[in-house]
Amino acid sequence: MRTVSWNDGRVVLVDQTRLPERLELIETDDVERVALAIRRLEVRGAPAIGVAAAYGLALAAFRSPAICAEGVLADLETARELLAATRPTAANLFWALDGMMAFARRRIEAGTEGFPEAMVAEAERMADRDVEVNRRLAEVGAELIPDGARVLTHCNCGPLCAVDVGTAMAPVIHAHGQGKRLHVYTDETRPRLQGAKLNAWELARAGVPYTVITDSTGGWLMSRGMVDLVMIGVDRVAANGDTAAKIGVYSLAVLARHHAVPFYAVSPLSTVDTALASGAEIPIEERDPDEVRKVNGTLVTMPDAPVLNYAFDVTPGELITAIVTERGIARPPYCEALRALASG
Amino acid sequence: MRTVSWNDGRVVLVDQTRLPERLELIETDDVERVALAIRRLEVRGAPAIGVAAAYGLALAAFRSPAICAEGVLADLETARELLAATRPTAANLFWALDGMMAFARRRIEAGTEGFPEAMVAEAERMADRDVEVNRRLAEVGAELIPDGARVLTHCNCGPLCAVDVGTAMAPVIHAHGQGKRLHVYTDETRPRLQGAKLNAWELARAGVPYTVITDSTGGWLMSRGMVDLVMIGVDRVAANGDTAAKIGVYSLAVLARHHAVPFYAVSPLSTVDTALASGAEIPIEERDPDEVRKVNGTLVTMPDAPVLNYAFDVTPGELITAIVTERGIARPPYCEALRALASG
Repeated sequence: MRTVSWNDGRVVLVDQTRLPERLELIETDDVERVALAIRRLEVRGAPAIGVAAAYGLALAAFRSPAICAEGVLADLETARELLAATRPTAANLFWALDGMMAFARRRIEAGTEGFPEAMVAEAERMADRDVEVNRRLAEVGAELIPDGARVLTHCNCGPLCAVDVGTAMAPVIHAHGQGKRLHVYTDETRPRLQGAKLNAWELARAGVPYTVITDSTGGWLMSRGMVDLVMIGVDRVAANGDTAAKIGVYSLAVLARHHAVPFYAVSPLSTVDTALASGAEIPIEERDPDEVRKVNGTLVTMPDAPVLNYAFDVTPGELITAIVTERGIARPPYCEALRALASG
Repeated sequence: MRTVSWNDGRVVLVDQTRLPERLELIETDDVERVALAIRRLEVRGAPAIGVAAAYGLALAAFRSPAICAEGVLADLETARELLAATRPTAANLFWALDGMMAFARRRIEAGTEGFPEAMVAEAERMADRDVEVNRRLAEVGAELIPDGARVLTHCNCGPLCAVDVGTAMAPVIHAHGQGKRLHVYTDETRPRLQGAKLNAWELARAGVPYTVITDSTGGWLMSRGMVDLVMIGVDRVAANGDTAAKIGVYSLAVLARHHAVPFYAVSPLSTVDTALASGAEIPIEERDPDEVRKVNGTLVTMPDAPVLNYAFDVTPGELITAIVTERGIARPPYCEALRALASG
């Protein structure tokens, strides 16, 4: 089952805030509802957000009352702005929106007839490519995982974070399928607990042995020789390899370096933003303090406790041992390596 | 108000699992209930546990039906074993039990008459000494905190972790009282959230500006130059300065070293276990997986998700910039420095 899909004029999303208790779907023909789902993290994970936004633009094409090309494009632009304003950090969101808008401008020259259907077909191609790319990430990344490896990861980076297959857990699940014996330590990942809620659920479904740990535990496991490699999914990679990912990944990278544990980022090339020279330019989303103050709706501190809730941090490229892309493995210095892979 | 006290034949404990919602007291004349309170973390923090256990032995003295000295000592020994079995890591528990048993053996030579009252008086002296020691920690430690300092801390280490005043937050609150401008970043400290629940509550009461952050955020704040020093409370210090403290402290020490941020441990000498050559000998408590699986009773992962729940980790002495004790500041190499302070 795909995390994000199209069904008969509606976008269908797995509601990731309900897992692991319930597998519920959100179905909507309203682009504002798609934007809300992205903001609320009902759909999350850089690749999944990108494809959901692409489908959102397809919805906007169907809903546009305009009859001329300029009107349709103006309505699409409004929808694009709505979707782009949801989350500032993940590269895929902007990559997907830019790709869909470029397609729209080309396609509409052939007339408005059949235009919405063409937009859906383009979003479908994007979704299919995402799955294909993630399958390649799985194969390429699995080469870095030796038999017997104990892998530490953070946040959710399995099938749910993309259309299917996933990013950083894709190589792990693939290596497991190759018969390698593996164990995954999955950080619970406060405040939203995507590790405890989603990654654990996916690893259990895939039959990969795993253990949930608090976010404070990974460093201690490294010091005890219990971690062979760290593998994480990412949200935006700058040209020099600086990498924005879920808050906590930076600390894991420092800890991995201190313990000489290899630290791998798994990133489709759609997450690489070669327009950014370095991570200093990546905007870091700050989210609602109540995400920290409450867990599952219950207060865990005072209702007015001051909170700083950065959703992401940036790991310098020099702390990253290698970046796994669908076209191969990039190693430092990344400027050269990533450009070569991006240009095919 | 004291966290742990004696009132008319009963031990009175602030129930730390109810804060910050409710300030509730546990009153009991039953040593088994005291042991249960320590196991459940209703009373927690190395110094508070020690004094609670001392009062527990006083309760046992009152409840002993024995009429001869040997019988009373045998009943005390049974109570000592019960209390010692609650939590394996904190040094103060064993220090307090050993101190009370040594007192009991001396005092009972004068006869069993007035013995229970003498045990209470000894436990009271221990509690008073704890407050006095913590006041000294406050004064000594405040010297390390410059005006304008932004302090990162983990777990709860204010008044609640001891009889009163506290350990690592004592210098901070003292420095605040001296008129220094300070800001505290307090880690929420999963799984039991003592930072979000207790440290935030205490800092708010003391009027010290603070911000709650997730346990994954501290490293990122350091990298942005937002942390001037780390100050933490500890549970057992070995002769060489290796320090057991709440899980996550080790990772903070590595991160502090990476960012050249001073890392201070605040430790009454009762927490220093000079009988241990190094931290490798400190037993690390593993607690119930449900502490991680659930938050305030609500599941945050699958009910059968495998969990590893270390309550503590050990930070090597070489990562600790200084250890604050009531007799002064120890700096590396710690073997010599701690021995000199311990011998007065």
